[in-house]
Amino acid sequence: MSSTSPSLFQPVALAHASRLINHGPTVLVTSRDGARRNVMAAAWSMPVEFSPPRIAVVIDKATFTRELIAASGVFGIVVPGAALATQVLAVGSESGRDVDEGDKFSRHGLIALAGPVLGVPVIEAGCAAWLECRLIPEPHTEAAYDTCFAEVVSAAADARIFAGGHWTLREDNADLHTLHHLGGGHFAQAGAVIHARRG
Amino acid sequence: MSSTSPSLFQPVALAHASRLINHGPTVLVTSRDGARRNVMAAAWSMPVEFSPPRIAVVIDKATFTRELIAASGVFGIVVPGAALATQVLAVGSESGRDVDEGDKFSRHGLIALAGPVLGVPVIEAGCAAWLECRLIPEPHTEAAYDTCFAEVVSAAADARIFAGGHWTLREDNADLHTLHHLGGGHFAQAGAVIHARRG
Repeated sequence: MSSTSPSLFQPVALAHASRLINHGPTVLVTSRDGARRNVMAAAWSMPVEFSPPRIAVVIDKATFTRELIAASGVFGIVVPGAALATQVLAVGSESGRDVDEGDKFSRHGLIALAGPVLGVPVIEAGCAAWLECRLIPEPHTEAAYDTCFAEVVSAAADARIFAGGHWTLREDNADLHTLHHLGGGHFAQAGAVIHARRG
Repeated sequence: MSSTSPSLFQPVALAHASRLINHGPTVLVTSRDGARRNVMAAAWSMPVEFSPPRIAVVIDKATFTRELIAASGVFGIVVPGAALATQVLAVGSESGRDVDEGDKFSRHGLIALAGPVLGVPVIEAGCAAWLECRLIPEPHTEAAYDTCFAEVVSAAADARIFAGGHWTLREDNADLHTLHHLGGGHFAQAGAVIHARRG
């Protein structure tokens, strides 16, 4: 478990929030409504606007997460680090409606904190970043494409890997490198960085 | 230029098409209308449905690409390999409306072929995969979020890196590893693969 690593999260300016998912990491979607809470994995998310920062994420309408988001109007996006790959696969495979062994956070040792603006569950231990999101209701796209649009209202990142609006991927922070789901439980880690030059 | 590498593209079954962009690579969006054609970079795309395979991609409404897609109703998604990072940055920085020095394909040595179903420009040399897409008109999301939905009608991939529905990332195919734009011309390459186990 990466929860043994200390968390060094710092706020991320909203102008930089889109960069947290710009490179296509697989994310966790967190939700809560009253005493119920949930976490699932989502490979399909993207920014759609820099300012105001807006994102889109695909969440199947049959999921417990969609039920909680519909009730609360808010959710969290958490960017897990590479060391959490097993947990990401697990929370993407189980339903949060099965609560016999506790919710999915406690089942998988994921420590949830309350986001500062919306109070949605966010995870720092083992993770690179999180965003608090307010759903922008779009009934048609939610129904036709399971695509939920949202505005990002706060964000933070572990300063060891994202600071000043920039990702820094090094060998010594490899546990926090983002995961990119190739399918079937296989993830590519964000690896070597290429600095392309403008002509 | 990676165009010196031979292309070994093979058709990808539509049931596997979403896997070509499941892990969040930065892609090229290709378009044409009559004799006009264009290519731009897009960091913001995602699958939204496995079957039928559907995707969403953010394309600014001010771009030449949007003009061509609005006129033709079709476009291509090309997944460039790491060796094309400089060209990806370039076609993401220039407008295709400036045709004094030829269109953006010829300006940057990108060899376009005609897709087999829709005839949209696709690129194989230096690239990992391509998808031919038919726009699903959604005027509201196109206007409000620059988000274009589309159905994938054909796909292909270089068999050295994607075959049988699976990505295989190795050192000997590193030039074809996908690019993931971190911002400012910095790309993370899809790197080491983690095989997560189900509990």
